[in-house]
Amino acid sequence: MSSKRAVVLVSGGLDSATTLAMAREQGFECYALSFDYGQRHRCELTASDAVADSLGAIEHRTFTLDLRQFGGSALTDDAIEVPDSGGEGIPVTYVPARNTVFLSLALAWAEVLGAHDIFIGVNAVDYSGYPDCRPAFIRAFEQTANLATREGVEGRAFSIHAPLIDLTKAEIIRTGTRLGVDYGLTVSCYNPDEHGLACGRCDSCRLRAEGFARAGLPDPTHYQGKPE
Amino acid sequence: MSSKRAVVLVSGGLDSATTLAMAREQGFECYALSFDYGQRHRCELTASDAVADSLGAIEHRTFTLDLRQFGGSALTDDAIEVPDSGGEGIPVTYVPARNTVFLSLALAWAEVLGAHDIFIGVNAVDYSGYPDCRPAFIRAFEQTANLATREGVEGRAFSIHAPLIDLTKAEIIRTGTRLGVDYGLTVSCYNPDEHGLACGRCDSCRLRAEGFARAGLPDPTHYQGKPE
Repeated sequence: MSSKRAVVLVSGGLDSATTLAMAREQGFECYALSFDYGQRHRCELTASDAVADSLGAIEHRTFTLDLRQFGGSALTDDAIEVPDSGGEGIPVTYVPARNTVFLSLALAWAEVLGAHDIFIGVNAVDYSGYPDCRPAFIRAFEQTANLATREGVEGRAFSIHAPLIDLTKAEIIRTGTRLGVDYGLTVSCYNPDEHGLACGRCDSCRLRAEGFARAGLPDPTHYQGKPE
Repeated sequence: MSSKRAVVLVSGGLDSATTLAMAREQGFECYALSFDYGQRHRCELTASDAVADSLGAIEHRTFTLDLRQFGGSALTDDAIEVPDSGGEGIPVTYVPARNTVFLSLALAWAEVLGAHDIFIGVNAVDYSGYPDCRPAFIRAFEQTANLATREGVEGRAFSIHAPLIDLTKAEIIRTGTRLGVDYGLTVSCYNPDEHGLACGRCDSCRLRAEGFARAGLPDPTHYQGKPE
């Protein structure tokens, strides 16, 4: 085991929980970073605490920045409804520049910690059409990070790791299960109820349920209207 | 005059005031964006209001995000002192990943506004050794922006404008003076007193005073200990 530090973006969802488990398996001391950005599905903040704790993060910080000041997404603007199905093109749940903002803040924390590795659970297979989940975006941000920072200029390069990027949802779930992730702690739904129970209908719920089915593993998701 | 919108980063300092004046001269409707990020020199927030107002910004928003949560700079960590002179290398006033964070949030607002132009007053000549003020950084961020966003994917490319990047401080001051910037409204000092008066000793004060001297223009800066 090395004692290298990594900053890992943890949303409380299935993908980032798996990413945290993978970073730990690679020997990193993990510093989990979550964002309270004014999202509708605030139960993910509680979930991210449980996930970071259960997977042995050294520290977990929740950074507050209110993206509702800008709006422009069904996830940050009450005037835009979350649809049941995605339709064509980039969906209304896309939050403008979200991953760029989140990676920038991860970079700031990494530089202060002396960490040179940042993990993000983006996925280009079941990616819902979000532009900032593609490999070309991750590579461009990595290049920007190395030009933006003291560490980059002084030759200690940053790596942006996106270990899920080429995996299907089923492969992600199999990997996380092997690494001991408790997916019952995670929340993926865009429209959870006040108890954090999933709607079972939104894009995110649909992709998640299909993933468990294709992985041949039991789905531990807590759905609305079903006995716990 | 076109009616194109631009987001302009406005700090309350000399450089960003000049940048706002240049964006307006190019025919942009300017949306000024400032950050309350926990900086020591909070009088710059008052100055940014005055600058945005005096130079005809359509709207001025101050976005709050507390970079003191991460620290790591003399500007955001009370445990690190602001030195009188810079010395060698990247100075302690460097705020980790600051321009990456600020440009990311400008990008988020631009995408919501339907703006494709972002102006930032970075300068590679009198740049104090900050890595995120170099042309290569600006180009890398522009590329990232176009991969990160709905607008970029759909072919409406973003441009990151850094019109001061090759200018000396004297050239910046001459340009702004020609465009009607009132530099008496701006604050550049890293160590202003409680009235917003400049120390006259820090790197930023020194570069500013030299700029006015070399431009052959009167210095309207309000210094500590001098009669107003």
